[in-house]
Amino acid sequence: MEELKSLTRLQESLAKLPSVGKKSAERMAFAMLDMDDDDLLEFSEAIRDLKNKIHHCPICGNITEQEECEICRDESRDRTTLMVVSSPKDIMAFESADGFNGVYHVLGGTISLTKGKGVDDLNISSLLERVDKGEIKEIILATNPTVDGETTALYLAKLLQSKDVNVTRLAYGLPMGGNLDYADALTLAKAIEGRRKI
Amino acid sequence: MEELKSLTRLQESLAKLPSVGKKSAERMAFAMLDMDDDDLLEFSEAIRDLKNKIHHCPICGNITEQEECEICRDESRDRTTLMVVSSPKDIMAFESADGFNGVYHVLGGTISLTKGKGVDDLNISSLLERVDKGEIKEIILATNPTVDGETTALYLAKLLQSKDVNVTRLAYGLPMGGNLDYADALTLAKAIEGRRKI
Repeated sequence: MEELKSLTRLQESLAKLPSVGKKSAERMAFAMLDMDDDDLLEFSEAIRDLKNKIHHCPICGNITEQEECEICRDESRDRTTLMVVSSPKDIMAFESADGFNGVYHVLGGTISLTKGKGVDDLNISSLLERVDKGEIKEIILATNPTVDGETTALYLAKLLQSKDVNVTRLAYGLPMGGNLDYADALTLAKAIEGRRKI
Repeated sequence: MEELKSLTRLQESLAKLPSVGKKSAERMAFAMLDMDDDDLLEFSEAIRDLKNKIHHCPICGNITEQEECEICRDESRDRTTLMVVSSPKDIMAFESADGFNGVYHVLGGTISLTKGKGVDDLNISSLLERVDKGEIKEIILATNPTVDGETTALYLAKLLQSKDVNVTRLAYGLPMGGNLDYADALTLAKAIEGRRKI
C-alpha cells in the first residue's frame, strides 16, 4: 500500500513509549486521525513544552517546575531522614502513601548490567556530599526489590559503611490486601524470615 | 505534591489515546521525560503535521497523501468488485492479506446506538452514486462481525436490494490457525451453519 509518511512517522514516535508495540502504535496513530485538530495541537505542544519547564532539583534530583523541588523547599520536612530512590516517580508513590516525612535523593536509575548502567551514571557523589554535611542520621535505601535494585542498595550500603549514618532498607513481605495463595515463593520466604512478634 | 503542570498536561493528552488509562498515561509521560530532546521534538512535529498532509480520497474515502488514494489510482484493480469497510484501517488489513483485487468504499464508521452514530453520519450517498454509475457488479459488505457492524451490513443490504448488483457478506467461521476449544459458542454455531462440502 501507499506509504503514508506522516502516519508512519507518528507511529515510529508512538512506538518509543513504554509498552507500546508496533500494533498499538498503529492503532493509536489511526485514532489520532479522528481526533479534533485542537486536541492534536494541544498534544503536540504539551510534548514540545515538556522539557522546557521541567528540570531536576539541584538538591535531590526530583523533578520540579520551580527552582528547587517542593519537598526540599518544605521547612516542615525532617531533614535527618533521607530516602534514596531510583526515580522521581518513586517519590510520587511514597508521597501519595503518606507515611514518610523525610527528604529524598534520586539516583536517576539503578546499577544495571542489562542496561549497561554503572555507578558513574547515578547521582551518588551528590548523595555523599549531602551525607558529609552531617545533618542526616538515617538513610533508607528504597530501590526496587529487583536484581538491579538490590545490587544498587548493597553497593550503597557498603559505600555508606564508613559514614556516621544508620543505613536501612525497606521491609520485604506480603503485600497488604493480597492473598497468600497468590504470593510467590520468594516473597513468602522473605515474609517468614522477617516475621515479628505481635 | 507540587503540581507539575507540563507533566499533567501531557498526561491528559496521552490519556485520550485508545486503551491508555490514567496510570499508563503517567508511566508514558515519565518515560518521555527521559527521552532525547530530538526525539521529543520529532514526536511533537509528527503530531502537528499529521492532518496537514493526510486527507480522504474523494472517490472511496480511504486516507492518502496524494490527490486520490493509491487503490483508486491503480489501473490494474478490478473496478467491478467493491468492498465496503468501516474505516481506512480495514483496507490496510485486507491489503496486507493480499486476497482482494477490487476497490473499496469507506463508510467512516458504523451505525451505532451507543456512539450515537446514524445513517446520515456515514458515506452512504457517495456509495449509492458509485453504484448508480453501473460499473460495479458485486458489493462485499465487510463491516466487523459485531452488533454495530451487522446492523450496518443489514441496512446496506436492504438499501442495495433495488440496485442491479450482487451484495455479499464476508464468511463467518473458525479463525485460521485457531484452536477449536478457544472458539466461542457463536463462532462454532456459525461455522457449523456455514459448512461446505469438500
